[in-house]
Amino acid sequence: MFEFEIKSRDGRARTAQFTTPHGTVQTPMFMPVGTQGSVKGISAQELKDIGSQMVLGNTYHLMLRPGHEMVAVHGGLPGFTAYPGPFLTDSGGFQVMSLGHMRKISEEGVVFKSHLDGSPVHLTPERSVEVQQGLGADVMMAFDECPPFPAEVPYIKSSLERTVRWLERCLKAKTREDQALFAIVQGGIHRELRQQSLDATVPFATPGFAIGGLAVGESKDEMFPAVGFTARGLPENKPRYLMGVGHPEDLVAGIALGVDMFDCVYPTRTGRFGYALTDDGRLNMNSAAPRSELKPIDPDCDCYACTHHTRAYLAHLIKAEEMLAPRLLSLHNLRYLHRLVERARAAIEAGEFQTWATEWGERYFRNRPAGAPLPEWFARAVRGED
Amino acid sequence: MFEFEIKSRDGRARTAQFTTPHGTVQTPMFMPVGTQGSVKGISAQELKDIGSQMVLGNTYHLMLRPGHEMVAVHGGLPGFTAYPGPFLTDSGGFQVMSLGHMRKISEEGVVFKSHLDGSPVHLTPERSVEVQQGLGADVMMAFDECPPFPAEVPYIKSSLERTVRWLERCLKAKTREDQALFAIVQGGIHRELRQQSLDATVPFATPGFAIGGLAVGESKDEMFPAVGFTARGLPENKPRYLMGVGHPEDLVAGIALGVDMFDCVYPTRTGRFGYALTDDGRLNMNSAAPRSELKPIDPDCDCYACTHHTRAYLAHLIKAEEMLAPRLLSLHNLRYLHRLVERARAAIEAGEFQTWATEWGERYFRNRPAGAPLPEWFARAVRGED
Repeated sequence: MFEFEIKSRDGRARTAQFTTPHGTVQTPMFMPVGTQGSVKGISAQELKDIGSQMVLGNTYHLMLRPGHEMVAVHGGLPGFTAYPGPFLTDSGGFQVMSLGHMRKISEEGVVFKSHLDGSPVHLTPERSVEVQQGLGADVMMAFDECPPFPAEVPYIKSSLERTVRWLERCLKAKTREDQALFAIVQGGIHRELRQQSLDATVPFATPGFAIGGLAVGESKDEMFPAVGFTARGLPENKPRYLMGVGHPEDLVAGIALGVDMFDCVYPTRTGRFGYALTDDGRLNMNSAAPRSELKPIDPDCDCYACTHHTRAYLAHLIKAEEMLAPRLLSLHNLRYLHRLVERARAAIEAGEFQTWATEWGERYFRNRPAGAPLPEWFARAVRGED
Repeated sequence: MFEFEIKSRDGRARTAQFTTPHGTVQTPMFMPVGTQGSVKGISAQELKDIGSQMVLGNTYHLMLRPGHEMVAVHGGLPGFTAYPGPFLTDSGGFQVMSLGHMRKISEEGVVFKSHLDGSPVHLTPERSVEVQQGLGADVMMAFDECPPFPAEVPYIKSSLERTVRWLERCLKAKTREDQALFAIVQGGIHRELRQQSLDATVPFATPGFAIGGLAVGESKDEMFPAVGFTARGLPENKPRYLMGVGHPEDLVAGIALGVDMFDCVYPTRTGRFGYALTDDGRLNMNSAAPRSELKPIDPDCDCYACTHHTRAYLAHLIKAEEMLAPRLLSLHNLRYLHRLVERARAAIEAGEFQTWATEWGERYFRNRPAGAPLPEWFARAVRGED
């Protein structure tokens, strides 16, 4: 029911086809985040139209509201949201850490107070799987602990060991055959801990693996070597998912290091704040210049905003606080990331990924304050070094 | 360039075809309001998809921001907003009265302070026409004074006389041939004043006439007789536009009295507040019941929200404060009003308008607290009485 077929390789980057019960997707891919059952401001039809392939749902949010039972009576997230393609749900663990109040972590699981009404909520590996089965995503994530950054090595070590025991409990609790459960490799930015986590996790041979615990505050110089090292230790023939990442430059660097799947609220969040993603970097549509520009955000973009509207119109909507503005900028930014991974896939298939990524980076980072044309972490990643 | 061809009549109600430079529209029609160059939350493509025929722009808002010059360099509102059909702009007068601070009205015009930055702004008949020509709508409105409710008869009388003098100045200032200027009949709820305004206004033989000064605080028992009386005094062969109206029941009553055009922010505003318009009245999607209902808002509605989403999902989005909620409810409500006028047109053409309107009203008003199945003002209007 879940197949991952590699189509082409170029250095460490690869393209593949991932088959799930709700559809076959092409990787590398970026997954929009539908936190509460909706990608903020964007309709299910628009997600399809802009080339979204798989959408993320947040277990923590959906278990609190409307409750996974309500999602289940709709036939799971595809029925609830009307997005007919595959979904991925996280385990709820990360949001418990970042949003739950008064949380207490034990071997059993986590007890926390709901950020909505303060009521106590228990989340365990078994409960996370139960909720995720109700949500019905094609891909579920193992319930893990994601340590904060920075954290002490002994803490990260005991946490990743617990994450392995929780993985075992998740797999035991899982009953549905039409859902894949991905394991998560932790270990912070430490190679020896990443190796320990890999050694303990890979033998479970889940249908895919995630690289967790990154993009939580460390620098990119610290993050990408950890991404590359971890990706190298994962099986070739399984999808690799870098959780909570990212920015355009992170996608290009991650793909260079062999990552297949990404998700992040960044394109919609930065869109709501009035920023537009382009090959020339992030365009501040709140500034004065766009207000008189009669060209689209990006003449090469095929999104609805770029094919219908001038920067002047969009900048006016932002200034006038019209809700069409965050909607159209979010749509453009999502389409930008989808187009970015499409271009990366084409470059990999043409055997020109390193050249394409370097040229893309030289344009994208052109206006950075000083130094070499490319940040060192980016240049290293594009060369496939970790 | 502007033709109004009556297709059928049923009692005082009629259907017609109104030809403008940007397209031919079928009346009676409801016009969504794009206050600041955007119908809140709705894309230009969606307006087309739901059957919008003409869209309103607000001169007051657009002259302050982004300025009519910026709209003009886009080729007017169709180019600025990417809505390719006809537009109608108001004169700015009404918003000056309701939003401008420190306004002073004289024979020359109005001086007020911008609600955005407090800067002084002059609006005169000539200036209103100049701005509206820059905005480029197919239909412009004469700069009028809309007295508050209640107002003393002498004030309304001198105000409507000034409105006639301002109409003369507007027509003199107008230079573009591809824009129609509609005159506005005032007179509050007083027949003798309405008659005086009609007598002074109709001879200008503008390509259409508006009924102004209503829906400003008077009761429906007061408003609809004034609508019916005024409509009777307007030429048969010109479109009649009831400004700032309305609610579903107002559209049905207005059509019964011979009105052809309506506009109101109601469908989008009430949608943003979580209310859905249906034949069974206004559905409060903030209440508990819809949260567990697996049916659409309206099974007969062909809008995107009704064909894709359950009430439970939409109610969840409202509760979760997701911006998709106001967007989808606004879309449904606009489509509801467009479908309502489509049904009214079909009933008129079938010679069954009074029956249809009565049946529609009996269902729509079914849950009203007490008394006859239909409010007296509605029943009278449907019978064509004013």
